[in-house]
Amino acid sequence: MSSPYTALEGRFKRLADIEGALAVLSWDQAVCMPKGSGRTRGEQMATLKRLAHDALTSPETGELLAEAEETPELGDWQRANLREMRRRHARATAIDPALVEGLARATNSCELIWREARALSDFGMLRPELDEVLRLVREAAAQAGAALGLSPYDALLDEHQPGLGSADVERLFAPLQAALPGMIDAAIARQQPAIEPTGPFPIDRQRILGRRLIEAMGFDFNQGRLDESTHPFCGGTPEDIRMTTRYREDDAVSALMGMVHETGHALYEAGLPRAWLGQPVGESRGMAVHESQSLIVEMQTCRSPEFIRFLAGRLEQAFGEDPAWAPDNLVRLYNRVERSLIRVEADEITYPLHIVLRWRLERALILGDLTLSDLPAAWNDGMRELLGVVPANDRVGCLQDIHWPVGGFGYFPCYTLGAMLAAQLFQAAERDLPGLRAAIAQGDTGPMLGWLRQRIHGQGCRLPWGGLVAEATGRELSPEPFLAHLRHRYLGEG
Amino acid sequence: MSSPYTALEGRFKRLADIEGALAVLSWDQAVCMPKGSGRTRGEQMATLKRLAHDALTSPETGELLAEAEETPELGDWQRANLREMRRRHARATAIDPALVEGLARATNSCELIWREARALSDFGMLRPELDEVLRLVREAAAQAGAALGLSPYDALLDEHQPGLGSADVERLFAPLQAALPGMIDAAIARQQPAIEPTGPFPIDRQRILGRRLIEAMGFDFNQGRLDESTHPFCGGTPEDIRMTTRYREDDAVSALMGMVHETGHALYEAGLPRAWLGQPVGESRGMAVHESQSLIVEMQTCRSPEFIRFLAGRLEQAFGEDPAWAPDNLVRLYNRVERSLIRVEADEITYPLHIVLRWRLERALILGDLTLSDLPAAWNDGMRELLGVVPANDRVGCLQDIHWPVGGFGYFPCYTLGAMLAAQLFQAAERDLPGLRAAIAQGDTGPMLGWLRQRIHGQGCRLPWGGLVAEATGRELSPEPFLAHLRHRYLGEG
Repeated sequence: MSSPYTALEGRFKRLADIEGALAVLSWDQAVCMPKGSGRTRGEQMATLKRLAHDALTSPETGELLAEAEETPELGDWQRANLREMRRRHARATAIDPALVEGLARATNSCELIWREARALSDFGMLRPELDEVLRLVREAAAQAGAALGLSPYDALLDEHQPGLGSADVERLFAPLQAALPGMIDAAIARQQPAIEPTGPFPIDRQRILGRRLIEAMGFDFNQGRLDESTHPFCGGTPEDIRMTTRYREDDAVSALMGMVHETGHALYEAGLPRAWLGQPVGESRGMAVHESQSLIVEMQTCRSPEFIRFLAGRLEQAFGEDPAWAPDNLVRLYNRVERSLIRVEADEITYPLHIVLRWRLERALILGDLTLSDLPAAWNDGMRELLGVVPANDRVGCLQDIHWPVGGFGYFPCYTLGAMLAAQLFQAAERDLPGLRAAIAQGDTGPMLGWLRQRIHGQGCRLPWGGLVAEATGRELSPEPFLAHLRHRYLGEG
Repeated sequence: MSSPYTALEGRFKRLADIEGALAVLSWDQAVCMPKGSGRTRGEQMATLKRLAHDALTSPETGELLAEAEETPELGDWQRANLREMRRRHARATAIDPALVEGLARATNSCELIWREARALSDFGMLRPELDEVLRLVREAAAQAGAALGLSPYDALLDEHQPGLGSADVERLFAPLQAALPGMIDAAIARQQPAIEPTGPFPIDRQRILGRRLIEAMGFDFNQGRLDESTHPFCGGTPEDIRMTTRYREDDAVSALMGMVHETGHALYEAGLPRAWLGQPVGESRGMAVHESQSLIVEMQTCRSPEFIRFLAGRLEQAFGEDPAWAPDNLVRLYNRVERSLIRVEADEITYPLHIVLRWRLERALILGDLTLSDLPAAWNDGMRELLGVVPANDRVGCLQDIHWPVGGFGYFPCYTLGAMLAAQLFQAAERDLPGLRAAIAQGDTGPMLGWLRQRIHGQGCRLPWGGLVAEATGRELSPEPFLAHLRHRYLGEG
């Protein structure tokens, strides 16, 4: 006779198998699938999602959870696993299945319209479909919130970063709103011009250089791949990680930083505790933590002057001599600050203000304080206030992101909380490892990775995220290390 | 309220979604998956297979079948669909689930040992594992046979080609055994030497030429791909077909014929009735029919002197001048007869004798008339009798094929029945389409494809296979058209 807890492990392992299959199918859709096969793939994925949902929400799962929670002799990790199982079960059962299906249909259709509306810069075209998505998201958020004891917007935050609430975001974002506009002015005033390298940069060489860097950073291509897709991402499963990038012949710099960014995500997945693979406690600790892992690699490590100076030699080897590879020029090039309209192209110091804008607007939309007809004007006003630039049209304004059309409300804060956490983790690692920067100057990210594996990757979901941050860094998440990092890098302070 | 029949369509559609997902995962495993990810993938696939099996064998499926079979107002295709649903349900419920799982484990482990044993040419190393597989296959065949009213070996034949029995194979193979040895002697005696083209043949150019040929044959790359794998195959689903091939720089000829062979399989899948996609009646009509579709393209069409003469110009364009591209030389090269040891390298006229040997041996193993300790000697005796050559070791003898180690008993006859059916179909098409050969001589396989789409592809499983053959060709399957084709091509008769 297996115990209720053991039976649950079996159930969640099968759930992980289905979700792993979905991850491969989703990668295939972005990287391999022929254009004409979308309908079939959509149906395959919908069926697998339904099977996963049925397994998670079945009455037997609920009964086993109740029985297992009465079992006194479980160990730490098992208790944590049970807590995460309960969390997933509670979220999945909170929402009416008909609403889940309606939302899947509405977001599918809204995503297609969004692609067209964005191309035409026609927000009016998107509005009816986005209105329906918003209506269903608000309903789902209300249902989840009621079951979890959270406000609707907090229920959305909690979906992407369990344990995160509006009060945390408020507290953490306020100092950024206060400090960043002035820092951006100062950074732009003091930055010196940088020259661009002259292409073309053959894609084969970009690929070889990228793979070497990724391997040198500790990624094992025996359990993962690097391919190309329109929108770079890191998918797959911890034992079969699928990273993608996008190459441009006229730009050697952006694909490389895109690759190291995805490598940060990949190293997190690869470092999750192997003993708990396929169990909820063996998964990553939420999307703010995940974003911190890409940003500690990209922003804290690879865009540091130490690493860029090391990289300069590699770029010259790969693409031949160019005055732009001069280390100081490259440092300026990789850390250029600009007030721009597009979030995904924003630099490290302006990016958080793009997030603050989206956070304010999506919270107001969910609370019902803002209607979609007022969104374009509210967007433009916010851009003027926060960044001092105003989009000439909605294509480069409120139509630029895919998140809301696909129902992804509550995700945006994770990007900037990830940036904060990355800075706090890097500061703590530097304190623990005095040789950290010297190693990075040699292109050696091994000490950093070892530290992250122990403090973050190998912890899975053993702790709630607040506990994880506190154990790793000795304090709760704070904007101070991030602001100190920005002042150091962009204003030369400290 | 949906009718029982409609409810069954919904169930089988979800089953097709799971099976389609499995097809993509299996393609990914052969083409993309990193080496170290096999364990995870194996677990994902086992879970999906189990979900598919559970859905197929659930008591509700059985009840719905019984109710639907009492429904009088179903149309032809619906009746046929119901018949195929019943067939799948009957097979799946016939075998003890514990036996299915045991067989999956035993064949997984036996396949690994087989790879090693074949490399070492050590049959003794394989024997214990193969013995276990054989024991479980015999048990499963007995259970399936008992439920379906078939002898155990017939239950295995019926698994791969529904409706095929030992008596059919006996009747169809006897004339081959009588005629082929003499024909091979005569073909070898009269064939003239052919010169080989001089490589290397850049793989990029092989790929471009191959893709152009495949497209010209009517395959739509909007709903399929061509990739590389160690063992070429055609997988995926009818709206997302995944073909693979294998290139060698020193051989322009074999990859090309491999590609057109897989294209035959692919065109069959692509031509299945779209209105019945995802339903059992919309699937291919068994593996002998599937093999006929690859062979009518490869053997009947592309290795015909008419097509080879057309191809000669394309090869010269792609790879530059070479005396070997002289059309008559190329015809000899593509139709060379040789008594060889390896089935997959055998030519069209010796190939059936390789199959006769395997058919005799596997039937004897299932019936219990032959034990594995006697297999190597029986193999070598059979090769001497049928082909006049004897393997120097088991690596090129009874260890060469993967089929038995993975439990694939009862498949081998499909290859040669497919060759027979291909000849009979081609003969019938020629009768219906007087300009068929003239079109092929222009590289135009459109008339052939149009005929196959109507007579075979678009029929799905509307008819049992005997009925399909009779409606398409006006007679039941016979070895005569195949023997006539061989006499014509290799002895210059008729």
